[in-house]
Amino acid sequence: MKKIVTMGEIMMRLSPKNNLRFNQASSFDVIYGGGEANVAVSLSNYGNDVTFLTKLPKHEIGDCAIEFLRTKNVNTNSIARGGERLGIYFLEHGVSMRPSKVVYDRAHSSIASATSSDFDFDKIFEGKEWFHFTGITPALSPLSVKLTTEAVKKAKSNGLTVSVDLNYRKKLWTPEEAQKAMIPLMEYVDVCIGNEEDAEKVLGLKPDGSDIDKGKLSIDGYKALLKTLKDKYNFTHATCSLRESLSASDNGWSGLLYDGKEFFHSKHYDIRIVDRVGGGDAFASGFIHGLITKNDSRYAIEFAAAASALKHTIFGDFNLVSISEVEALMGGDASGRVQR
Amino acid sequence: MKKIVTMGEIMMRLSPKNNLRFNQASSFDVIYGGGEANVAVSLSNYGNDVTFLTKLPKHEIGDCAIEFLRTKNVNTNSIARGGERLGIYFLEHGVSMRPSKVVYDRAHSSIASATSSDFDFDKIFEGKEWFHFTGITPALSPLSVKLTTEAVKKAKSNGLTVSVDLNYRKKLWTPEEAQKAMIPLMEYVDVCIGNEEDAEKVLGLKPDGSDIDKGKLSIDGYKALLKTLKDKYNFTHATCSLRESLSASDNGWSGLLYDGKEFFHSKHYDIRIVDRVGGGDAFASGFIHGLITKNDSRYAIEFAAAASALKHTIFGDFNLVSISEVEALMGGDASGRVQR
Amino acid sequence: MKKIVTMGEIMMRLSPKNNLRFNQASSFDVIYGGGEANVAVSLSNYGNDVTFLTKLPKHEIGDCAIEFLRTKNVNTNSIARGGERLGIYFLEHGVSMRPSKVVYDRAHSSIASATSSDFDFDKIFEGKEWFHFTGITPALSPLSVKLTTEAVKKAKSNGLTVSVDLNYRKKLWTPEEAQKAMIPLMEYVDVCIGNEEDAEKVLGLKPDGSDIDKGKLSIDGYKALLKTLKDKYNFTHATCSLRESLSASDNGWSGLLYDGKEFFHSKHYDIRIVDRVGGGDAFASGFIHGLITKNDSRYAIEFAAAASALKHTIFGDFNLVSISEVEALMGGDASGRVQR
Amino acid sequence: MKKIVTMGEIMMRLSPKNNLRFNQASSFDVIYGGGEANVAVSLSNYGNDVTFLTKLPKHEIGDCAIEFLRTKNVNTNSIARGGERLGIYFLEHGVSMRPSKVVYDRAHSSIASATSSDFDFDKIFEGKEWFHFTGITPALSPLSVKLTTEAVKKAKSNGLTVSVDLNYRKKLWTPEEAQKAMIPLMEYVDVCIGNEEDAEKVLGLKPDGSDIDKGKLSIDGYKALLKTLKDKYNFTHATCSLRESLSASDNGWSGLLYDGKEFFHSKHYDIRIVDRVGGGDAFASGFIHGLITKNDSRYAIEFAAAASALKHTIFGDFNLVSISEVEALMGGDASGRVQR
Amino acid sequence: MKKIVTMGEIMMRLSPKNNLRFNQASSFDVIYGGGEANVAVSLSNYGNDVTFLTKLPKHEIGDCAIEFLRTKNVNTNSIARGGERLGIYFLEHGVSMRPSKVVYDRAHSSIASATSSDFDFDKIFEGKEWFHFTGITPALSPLSVKLTTEAVKKAKSNGLTVSVDLNYRKKLWTPEEAQKAMIPLMEYVDVCIGNEEDAEKVLGLKPDGSDIDKGKLSIDGYKALLKTLKDKYNFTHATCSLRESLSASDNGWSGLLYDGKEFFHSKHYDIRIVDRVGGGDAFASGFIHGLITKNDSRYAIEFAAAASALKHTIFGDFNLVSISEVEALMGGDASGRVQR
Amino acid sequence: MKKIVTMGEIMMRLSPKNNLRFNQASSFDVIYGGGEANVAVSLSNYGNDVTFLTKLPKHEIGDCAIEFLRTKNVNTNSIARGGERLGIYFLEHGVSMRPSKVVYDRAHSSIASATSSDFDFDKIFEGKEWFHFTGITPALSPLSVKLTTEAVKKAKSNGLTVSVDLNYRKKLWTPEEAQKAMIPLMEYVDVCIGNEEDAEKVLGLKPDGSDIDKGKLSIDGYKALLKTLKDKYNFTHATCSLRESLSASDNGWSGLLYDGKEFFHSKHYDIRIVDRVGGGDAFASGFIHGLITKNDSRYAIEFAAAASALKHTIFGDFNLVSISEVEALMGGDASGRVQR
Repeated sequence: MKKIVTMGEIMMRLSPKNNLRFNQASSFDVIYGGGEANVAVSLSNYGNDVTFLTKLPKHEIGDCAIEFLRTKNVNTNSIARGGERLGIYFLEHGVSMRPSKVVYDRAHSSIASATSSDFDFDKIFEGKEWFHFTGITPALSPLSVKLTTEAVKKAKSNGLTVSVDLNYRKKLWTPEEAQKAMIPLMEYVDVCIGNEEDAEKVLGLKPDGSDIDKGKLSIDGYKALLKTLKDKYNFTHATCSLRESLSASDNGWSGLLYDGKEFFHSKHYDIRIVDRVGGGDAFASGFIHGLITKNDSRYAIEFAAAASALKHTIFGDFNLVSISEVEALMGGDASGRVQR
Repeated sequence: MKKIVTMGEIMMRLSPKNNLRFNQASSFDVIYGGGEANVAVSLSNYGNDVTFLTKLPKHEIGDCAIEFLRTKNVNTNSIARGGERLGIYFLEHGVSMRPSKVVYDRAHSSIASATSSDFDFDKIFEGKEWFHFTGITPALSPLSVKLTTEAVKKAKSNGLTVSVDLNYRKKLWTPEEAQKAMIPLMEYVDVCIGNEEDAEKVLGLKPDGSDIDKGKLSIDGYKALLKTLKDKYNFTHATCSLRESLSASDNGWSGLLYDGKEFFHSKHYDIRIVDRVGGGDAFASGFIHGLITKNDSRYAIEFAAAASALKHTIFGDFNLVSISEVEALMGGDASGRVQR
Repeated sequence: MKKIVTMGEIMMRLSPKNNLRFNQASSFDVIYGGGEANVAVSLSNYGNDVTFLTKLPKHEIGDCAIEFLRTKNVNTNSIARGGERLGIYFLEHGVSMRPSKVVYDRAHSSIASATSSDFDFDKIFEGKEWFHFTGITPALSPLSVKLTTEAVKKAKSNGLTVSVDLNYRKKLWTPEEAQKAMIPLMEYVDVCIGNEEDAEKVLGLKPDGSDIDKGKLSIDGYKALLKTLKDKYNFTHATCSLRESLSASDNGWSGLLYDGKEFFHSKHYDIRIVDRVGGGDAFASGFIHGLITKNDSRYAIEFAAAASALKHTIFGDFNLVSISEVEALMGGDASGRVQR
Repeated sequence: MKKIVTMGEIMMRLSPKNNLRFNQASSFDVIYGGGEANVAVSLSNYGNDVTFLTKLPKHEIGDCAIEFLRTKNVNTNSIARGGERLGIYFLEHGVSMRPSKVVYDRAHSSIASATSSDFDFDKIFEGKEWFHFTGITPALSPLSVKLTTEAVKKAKSNGLTVSVDLNYRKKLWTPEEAQKAMIPLMEYVDVCIGNEEDAEKVLGLKPDGSDIDKGKLSIDGYKALLKTLKDKYNFTHATCSLRESLSASDNGWSGLLYDGKEFFHSKHYDIRIVDRVGGGDAFASGFIHGLITKNDSRYAIEFAAAASALKHTIFGDFNLVSISEVEALMGGDASGRVQR
Repeated sequence: MKKIVTMGEIMMRLSPKNNLRFNQASSFDVIYGGGEANVAVSLSNYGNDVTFLTKLPKHEIGDCAIEFLRTKNVNTNSIARGGERLGIYFLEHGVSMRPSKVVYDRAHSSIASATSSDFDFDKIFEGKEWFHFTGITPALSPLSVKLTTEAVKKAKSNGLTVSVDLNYRKKLWTPEEAQKAMIPLMEYVDVCIGNEEDAEKVLGLKPDGSDIDKGKLSIDGYKALLKTLKDKYNFTHATCSLRESLSASDNGWSGLLYDGKEFFHSKHYDIRIVDRVGGGDAFASGFIHGLITKNDSRYAIEFAAAASALKHTIFGDFNLVSISEVEALMGGDASGRVQR
Repeated sequence: MKKIVTMGEIMMRLSPKNNLRFNQASSFDVIYGGGEANVAVSLSNYGNDVTFLTKLPKHEIGDCAIEFLRTKNVNTNSIARGGERLGIYFLEHGVSMRPSKVVYDRAHSSIASATSSDFDFDKIFEGKEWFHFTGITPALSPLSVKLTTEAVKKAKSNGLTVSVDLNYRKKLWTPEEAQKAMIPLMEYVDVCIGNEEDAEKVLGLKPDGSDIDKGKLSIDGYKALLKTLKDKYNFTHATCSLRESLSASDNGWSGLLYDGKEFFHSKHYDIRIVDRVGGGDAFASGFIHGLITKNDSRYAIEFAAAASALKHTIFGDFNLVSISEVEALMGGDASGRVQR
């Protein structure tokens, strides 16, 4: 059980039921989620002591986001209250060749206007071991770049291990903006996590020979990329998930890791998708958990890949799986047989 | 069938089902509504040719609001597209002594940043007969005060009758701000509509002897108020709905009118409430429709009161009733007997 | 436990959820019901052996109606299969001053085209004790008048007691048509049941001094009416329910009986309505059950009134209450206290 | 933006939720749809000005069908009101080897009894460019054969291009009846659309070498068939969709076109099915739209195939997709990647 | 903010939606609740630091109960895991004269077989200020009598104030059994809470002149009863809620308190009921909170009555209201006006 | 139409909707099912006269289970009432690599404490032709072993054919316990049915060369096993279903039969799973029905395999398919084409 802190935005997510399109919906399922919150929940779910930092408006809807986190035993005591609004995103679940669609309504959110005065970082990081952030947080606003930078430096100076999920969001910023903000942060990062396209957009490094939209991925290209990443920024570990987008309903999935000595390519999973959102966060949190509990590269990448494969079968942003479920899948039981 | 224009904000409304509190909801009912849109739909429903003016963001969620209006045959061709977002409000339905609760998330909406360049008012008003707005629109932003003023002037100069529903919203502005913006607009207004507290907040005129929170209303005080209003601003008609808030589930309801010659107090209704929102808009649209179809003060106030009483029994912001249903209730049949 | 037969139409009922209007519904609750089917279910529920006669189309939707009856232990073995369609009715639940609305789509139903060749009445009635029909069945079509006449005669010649619920339906026929078909059937009837307006429409006999739409009922007028009915047609019992329609949500309710010697006016109930449809059928079946089990006029009318009051609190056409529940209410416990 | 008219039946569709069987359902999803209405909506959705002609009963349920069309911006002003009823169909969604099931309850519908006196065809067709009908409309009744014939002739004499979707329905008529009614109409038709079995049933022309129930289709056989069709009836274009029914959940899908010069076989799609109904209508409307906007055979058949492939992923009869979504799929992106 | 401990059973509650009867339900709403858990949640909701003690089976369904509590910020760290099962109760919501019905399936629950070895009471009570239990816990089993006795003694010896809610459950034990177990516990109790019938069943003391099933309550009788209670057992406070059961939909409600010096009868509320379960627990927790925050008898009883009146308008066992909402109602605003 | 008796437990099944996990559910779908009840319903559905024996508690929830059976025309008249509770099982539907999960809460059920005094076996079996039980019933309790033994002997002595479905449940007993109870019963059994792992656990006989968790099955191994079974216990038929568990969403499926002369391996089905529970019961009932109606081994095994393949596409435990649907699939139409 490790003491971990993550920081970022948690949003309300509104999605039509039963694969309806937005304009067919007379009601929306409502949950709350966001990259770093999802990682917090996964890690808490595995039994770690996790604190999530964000800023939320001081009204009943802000309260709802906190209750949602609390259910999963995430420490919400350091969440700042105030600001204008809770970010919202509308999600239309895709099927087959119809892609999922996200409409963001997240501008002017409380966390986008938060500053380091909202958080007593030294106190928050005291006694903690790990800090995780993603590329989404600095993308929120210029203030958020500052806040993230401050947090990362404070985490480092307090002796925490720092991980980043590069997580490029094209509706939030351009590659140029992303690189300007993110590259300087890399010097504080120990563990770098990404997906098959993040490194190019966020750090300007591109794998060769893959056509992501066609679902074809070149493992060799990604190996080279991870090595470059690791070497350039002196990470202890560089890892990425590899998604083959066959359709909105079916994906191939695996994980790749370079730990400075060896490459590890996890088992490959063919996934029937229930909810694709949060898959990357489940990978990141699975990897962190795998690393901190066993400090074994093979275990960590297999745990990450299996955990995040499972995530795709679960509604919502959060990866509500137990260690034993992940390990059963890592161990090879993908048969889906009823347990009774 | 009259040609009518209304202008204002239409929002997404999100509400927990079955009287749940916000933090109990795993889904929200979604509809779209707003003061002037509600009036547009009611008037269209009665057979008028109604155009609604607003500005909506250029994405699928903006499209949804338009489709929702179109179902009810409102002309949406002059709606401007662009701007940042669609305003949202969260509504928790109250019951008994637990009041309904509204959390607004409407700042930065497209309509709040609209200017007169978004609408070709002369073309829009050509051939039209009536323009209706409410006190909510100028409350949205300083730009909105300008836009409303421009619209009212253009309507007047194009020969339209102008009606206003004073509609004070304390979460949007103070009485001082309201009075500063609204009083200058009164010179363009022909028909003034309000509820039992609007005139005080929006125009600085207070009825005597009523305690709104106790559900006690002094008819004489309201008569004097309507006369004052009418005389001061030279309205052709001053009318208001009178709500007795017995609880969130039960209200008394009637309407009062001064047409410069006589006072008319409508029948009184005891209402079991399904959805209270839009009750005032149903009163306004009922009054406008009554006036334009029969030009008979007694008919107009009875139509307004019956239509808006019925609204309280209908889910959503819109008053989906037919003329024959309103007239049956005006005619005295409140028995609720099954028609078969 | 008595052996009882009822005959008539069972329809699919489609109704919007949560008091929505027809044009707000994206789904309809579906149940199956109809006057005589409802009586069959109630009587079966009280432990009687009940056979329901109707004709249903030979497809999966016809099967659904049968399964629905079977759940409640009604004998469906003599139901004829064939004909064109299952009748449908759309029901919009009213609230407060907004009345419930029924749109019938029942023309061309299988039962409307059924003839006596569809039923082996002598075999069906063998060993049975009671036959119940209502004024709805002959209203379906000219063929249905013939079928009902045949059934009533066969029931009588087989020694069954015959009861009728007059049940006038203005959307099916005029008073003139009703009287022409129903009056000749009265000579075969032993027990006559109606509501506060049926006798006038179906038999041409009117109570004095009541204004049904205002919810005012004159008990003396109804007493005189029941006596006239009883004397004119030589019924053993004439009884009617008395509904005070205060609104679509609240009704007053009681029952009145004349057994040739005395008048019995049941307790009076103030009802908060969940589902008003089937209230009269619950009264009829309650009365029949009360009579056959105790042969005590006071018990019968109190059982009828309490059972049908309870029906108004239950969704659907069927009165799903037990004898002990009815007797508890008759005995005076209307407190609604939780039993735990 | 073209001016288009379609004519036919719109029905209420009632279907159990979540793949339940009819006898498991306690509620039905309700939408409205029908071959020509579905084409109208698709074409309107692509930005055309579309008028739909039908006849609907004059009650609230008839109104619901109109509102449903209006949402999608279809012009409903020429819809006749009257007649007996709105046709209904019950749809049980199949899965895997369990086929979807349709139970029709559409006899005696208002449109089946409509005559040319219900429509002022000359006025309706004035200024219009295209008329579309399907083989379903004349199948409704002998009166409908007359009505369709009249409409087709009037469309032609008013200079409109006429398209037909052959659309054989075995529950409505026999191949003999179909051929008797449909063959004479072919002389007025410019564009002929069908699926892999329609031509045989409706026009008596059969492709060689295919076993439809096994999901095997012979492209060469269909090419020959389209050529025969085109040549025999002098169509400008003969096109058909080719469905490989692997199971109720998975279909192969493509389109074939003969434009008198060349054959075009579209891309092939592997579809995970959400709702199969309306797939052919989406193909027809996609083809019409492709043809009228670009007059390019390759574009038209690819647009038709991609649009209708997408339809299978959308609940309901209507194909709620935008031009840009169709073109993205035509352009090769079937990866279903989330857009955010 | 006080440190409070409560101990008892939390059950799964399964209830049909929309006032359906058990045999009409195809799904059940699922929540978790129980007397002492409900008190824990209310007190936590008011900002106190609350620990709940129970024993739950070690499987996913047991986990669900814990997550449900955690949402409301209740400390669940001392909950024992093991034993056979989670108790269940089925609740049918009544309406009007149809009472709510509870079917218990709680035998063999984990908590019923818990012993003091499951809890380290000295450690748990360290630093805590208040312990609350109810008459339900010892009613569960003979082991539970022992466990409760042990807990009460440990609480007392650790210096906590002890409160009891007498809470008689006739489906769990007889008055004789109750009195045998409960009377000896009274010597450790400081604050005694009950409803209008508990004292008679649990302690053998009866008020005069009330007929609970008729909804008639004699205030003087209850005053005398509270005084007797207080004097006999030397409580600091004796208080009870007074429910007038007009029907399952409408109740009268108030609270009565004797603090050794004065009697306090709270405001009286007329309640439209959403969910009656947990009303007494809301009263108990409201009283405890009122007492510990202000130590003012008038405030405490008014807070208790207002809080518990509000509870009746909220779905589920938990009273999800804030201090400001309770105080607004205490302050007189029962108008239910929308706040916007 | 044969007269058949089955005996066993029927439980309430509670499952989250839409593939949610237990801790995401705010409501559970509720149905009732159990191995022998499922067989009873299937056989009744095919037109047989089927009696189901069990014991149920005497309360409303027990009634619900009976009503659920009655809908499907199963004779419930010999069900004993009394005992403590209705068994419950919680089912979480799996997807893809996430397996379905069952949490049993079935201890202390009424049937587990039933004895032969609850059933008048001689009277029940009089005139009946077939008795079916499964390995679940004796697994419930030591009393249940006795009850099952008594029933099987009585069935045999009354001349009924006896079938068993071995049905091993590892959460109910160990292989040792199973073998001790089940092996002695085999001498009374005529027809033995199982799945790919039952024989090993229940009878101690293991097929060679299969790895069930990998979804690989060795047909030859199973043939040898069936022959051994048949020969050892002198069954007339030994049959088993063969499931290839590719994932929780996709299974391969077929059936294997040895009738003493020949082996029959049915067609193989690739199944997209809606609800996996009851698949084996559908196989057993399909096999029994096939055998009793045609006494043709090929027909029986093909009917069994097709019926049970279809079951996987149907929500709930019951196999709601008709003979014609099964025969259509056996006949080769797995295309899932819409019938209209």
